[in-house]
Amino acid sequence: MSPSRDGHPAFVALGGGHGLSASLSALRRVTDRLTAVVTVADDGGSSGRLRDELDVLPPGDLRMALSALCDDSDWGRTWRDVLQHRFTSSGDLDNHAVGNLLIVALWELLGDTVDGLDWVGRLLGARGRVLPMAAVPLGIEADVRRPDGRVELVRGQSHVAVARDPIEAVRLVPDRPPALPEAVLAVERADWVVLGPGSWYTSVIPHLLVPDLADALHHTSARRIALLNLDPDDETAGMGPCEHLDALRQHAPGLRLDAVIADPGSVEDVDELEERTRTQGGRLLLRQVRRGDGTPRHDPLRLAAAISDVVEGYLGDVGAPDGMAG
Amino acid sequence: MSPSRDGHPAFVALGGGHGLSASLSALRRVTDRLTAVVTVADDGGSSGRLRDELDVLPPGDLRMALSALCDDSDWGRTWRDVLQHRFTSSGDLDNHAVGNLLIVALWELLGDTVDGLDWVGRLLGARGRVLPMAAVPLGIEADVRRPDGRVELVRGQSHVAVARDPIEAVRLVPDRPPALPEAVLAVERADWVVLGPGSWYTSVIPHLLVPDLADALHHTSARRIALLNLDPDDETAGMGPCEHLDALRQHAPGLRLDAVIADPGSVEDVDELEERTRTQGGRLLLRQVRRGDGTPRHDPLRLAAAISDVVEGYLGDVGAPDGMAG
Repeated sequence: MSPSRDGHPAFVALGGGHGLSASLSALRRVTDRLTAVVTVADDGGSSGRLRDELDVLPPGDLRMALSALCDDSDWGRTWRDVLQHRFTSSGDLDNHAVGNLLIVALWELLGDTVDGLDWVGRLLGARGRVLPMAAVPLGIEADVRRPDGRVELVRGQSHVAVARDPIEAVRLVPDRPPALPEAVLAVERADWVVLGPGSWYTSVIPHLLVPDLADALHHTSARRIALLNLDPDDETAGMGPCEHLDALRQHAPGLRLDAVIADPGSVEDVDELEERTRTQGGRLLLRQVRRGDGTPRHDPLRLAAAISDVVEGYLGDVGAPDGMAG
Repeated sequence: MSPSRDGHPAFVALGGGHGLSASLSALRRVTDRLTAVVTVADDGGSSGRLRDELDVLPPGDLRMALSALCDDSDWGRTWRDVLQHRFTSSGDLDNHAVGNLLIVALWELLGDTVDGLDWVGRLLGARGRVLPMAAVPLGIEADVRRPDGRVELVRGQSHVAVARDPIEAVRLVPDRPPALPEAVLAVERADWVVLGPGSWYTSVIPHLLVPDLADALHHTSARRIALLNLDPDDETAGMGPCEHLDALRQHAPGLRLDAVIADPGSVEDVDELEERTRTQGGRLLLRQVRRGDGTPRHDPLRLAAAISDVVEGYLGDVGAPDGMAG
């Protein structure tokens, strides 16, 4: 793969919530051609209420992605802080994020999802574009294996996200939703596609369940990078890095991963993860991408450096850079 | 009075609601040095609910003033439309204006009233500055003469505004509120101060009841212009232009008015209004400032032309321009 004619390679980052914020905070340091494709299945909190009250896409994950891309200036940071601000009261507005209200207002005013998000992007001086993965609000349901062996159907992202017991499969409701054409196009034209980190079943895998988007992800000429989580959360309790890759493969059979980036502190059995990565067609890069202060979060600069290593390795066609296994 | 060294004379417009929007829409065509000083006594609708729920100044009249000053570009008009947009639902957000929520969020985030309004002004590319007349939320109460002769105490701007019977006096609650220092300074430094049009008792007169602001209005070296309403409304039913001036004088004894601008179609007895204007120290300018399409609203360009005539007459020291009576 050669660098795009504009200099920077074009990246598409797929995910939602804090995980997507982490990948975007890193990717904005790697490229100026960046599109986020965001899950729209949230049914809790401010987003859930807006979705119910005004019949719109849940805006929360879109707001967070836009905020992660804000211009690093007094202007950009102030409007980001406004968008991220939540009201606190004993009344109607309690817990509503201001950016959610602003995004929904733009949608109502302009009558166009993409146009509204682009206006918020311009307000923030965003270093990239943010798009929803589907044109309609989605639901998520999961089959959860309870300790007594019974499989329970759990409905709603906010409930699946705290399932705590093993998730056997997730599905979208409706089950074959229309993708957003602009998101499909972005994947088709990308040089690099990045999956994760984030809530694996409710923020990362859902993209692979939107037929047109999944099709683009399978057939794009872009290289695919998976950014693994640092620690399991409530929906992946007990799952290691290998099981994360297994879950991806289960929901998107045949999807090739060109590179997997993991933090050594999160991997118990390196050999097994290397083997699993190779099975999906890719190479494993082990790098400390965790913050140095002990908080269990990705460090944007370290993650940017790791992604850049992968990109440089491929671009320069120099084989595996230092630390690149497989 | 000579023009200020910066070229344009400095104007301060006092009022609230749609009336202030009308004067600002005209004044932005006359000067680029414009400050709006806005009533903060609203207790109805979106503003009233925000005030109750979040313990803030009612933002609605401030939002409208900012919107009237927006930059005449795609950017300015779009953000103005966003600010003016109201949610419609059967839920919590029904009737909330987006700009009200945005202003309150900036106040909470920045912890400073003026700073928050300046940020919204920058967002809109506003052609001037918008300030509240007082540093604290205000109430309005009025003595209303009922048809049976009884005087009833009516509490709250939203109730006073629809009193329908003659208002004998209005008061603020608290009765001697602190002015906003920046608003006092703007009046002191102005070349021209404009009162009205608008809801006379609930949007125009309240400024004269804030002690420090009233003091500045009495003692400023600026010339004072009153813009009279086109038609009586629910709080001035039965009152003509002369009675409007009387009500001003009653609540601000000794306040000199240098010019009064009225639409000929709104004045039955020109001689009486001329006489009344002269009593308050000023001259009357009769000009068609009403729209040509029959709607009972001020035409921004016609009003701008009338104000400009007054300003030019004084500035050039050429005496009364054509149509200037007295």
